[in-house]
Amino acid sequence: MGAGAGRGAAEGRGEPRVSESVAARLLAVLGAFDSGHRVLTLTGLAHRAGLPLATAHRLAAQLTEWGALERDGGGCYQIGLRLWEVATLSPRPVGLREAALPFMEDLYEATHENVQLAVRDGTEAVYVERITGHSAVGVRTRVGGRWPLHATGVGLVLLAHSPPAVQDQVCRGRLERFTEKTVRDPRRLRAMLAEVRRADAAVSDRQITMDALSVAVPVRGPGGDVAAALSLVVPSAGARPHTLMPAVRVAARGISRRLGRAAE
Amino acid sequence: MGAGAGRGAAEGRGEPRVSESVAARLLAVLGAFDSGHRVLTLTGLAHRAGLPLATAHRLAAQLTEWGALERDGGGCYQIGLRLWEVATLSPRPVGLREAALPFMEDLYEATHENVQLAVRDGTEAVYVERITGHSAVGVRTRVGGRWPLHATGVGLVLLAHSPPAVQDQVCRGRLERFTEKTVRDPRRLRAMLAEVRRADAAVSDRQITMDALSVAVPVRGPGGDVAAALSLVVPSAGARPHTLMPAVRVAARGISRRLGRAAE
Repeated sequence: MGAGAGRGAAEGRGEPRVSESVAARLLAVLGAFDSGHRVLTLTGLAHRAGLPLATAHRLAAQLTEWGALERDGGGCYQIGLRLWEVATLSPRPVGLREAALPFMEDLYEATHENVQLAVRDGTEAVYVERITGHSAVGVRTRVGGRWPLHATGVGLVLLAHSPPAVQDQVCRGRLERFTEKTVRDPRRLRAMLAEVRRADAAVSDRQITMDALSVAVPVRGPGGDVAAALSLVVPSAGARPHTLMPAVRVAARGISRRLGRAAE
Repeated sequence: MGAGAGRGAAEGRGEPRVSESVAARLLAVLGAFDSGHRVLTLTGLAHRAGLPLATAHRLAAQLTEWGALERDGGGCYQIGLRLWEVATLSPRPVGLREAALPFMEDLYEATHENVQLAVRDGTEAVYVERITGHSAVGVRTRVGGRWPLHATGVGLVLLAHSPPAVQDQVCRGRLERFTEKTVRDPRRLRAMLAEVRRADAAVSDRQITMDALSVAVPVRGPGGDVAAALSLVVPSAGARPHTLMPAVRVAARGISRRLGRAAE
């Protein structure tokens, strides 16, 4: 059983009805793809979806006919253009992205550094947009990628403003180490979150890679809740977070104002 | 039967197997969403998917559990974050976008006008990326949106380089009118396509809206085939397409070179 089958499969819920089982299998086929598995052979697809080869073949054919999957020159399966089109209708990442992009471009143009926008989903940050120039410092994120909340700038902002139960879950869980600077002590993390709330901003200094530092601030929705976090990622050598903060804050406020207007 | 059920439903193919029918219904639920229907009530969803209410309810619940759909505050359905995440793995729009974005930003920064990137799917152009500033002329496209090939700048480039059968299909079909300037005469369209191939660029002058003009050029894949089209959309008043062309061409060549490197 591959990692991809997890959330999609119907196992452990007793005897599902036939139709439910088919739906679960179909979703398991989609769930078999992830950033490490963008292109799959039929065998790989069946293995990761936890399905017999014949079932995987039949479901993949139906998904391909609809346009949810496509086959490449070698006959391997990949996520198709039509599924991507349907997904562009998702309001949380896409509506936010539309509101944010002009302000993210302003910030990029003013700094020529990496500009990132993320939302929280459970105990992870999901990156919904990223602007990277030719010369900006290398970053490990990608649009649609997920990262734990405790180490990145946007993650710290999102975590600091998440419900207490989420903060508890993260602080009590395993705090993954990315560099020697990654904060892994729950007590230090809680103090850091309090400081993020006080300063209304977070600085993640070499916690993800030793050559980068990020400065992140909240983007607020129409009700004043934190809807997203915006960050600037710069080379850590010689970086002065406090000189970068105003530009990031101005851009985030522009996005927040746009979100507020959209809701009026 | 709603418009959304079209490609996904299994009608007209005789008696489908039970499982195929469930898969088709599940895909019809996803296909019920489009840019005019981003949020649907259960009744609206059932109607557009062409399904009985109880079936739509059961399938929507399964899609929601997996994260392909989400419910908003009022209980309505919308496309979910997880489906969007899976869709970010689609190589054609997303891989292309990753390669193109830095060059699109350069072009935006040099002009502060709308920058658009599209690929062909059948007889339509699908917009995979767009950069719009605060002050750029209003455009009617959106990321993930589809447009016919005969009138936009990117559409003309993609059509000029499509297989003869696709060109015939478009020229013989209904050529939709957007403005009084939209070319709707098949013979004139064919002459225009020949000119696009000769000049290796297209100009769409007020063919979509009377206040905008677009200049588009091909983006070539590793094999020299036209993989996408890049355009700059500017206010038509006072626009001089030939002064805009070099910047668009430089950006497109940068993207083509990047795509070629990625394939090495």
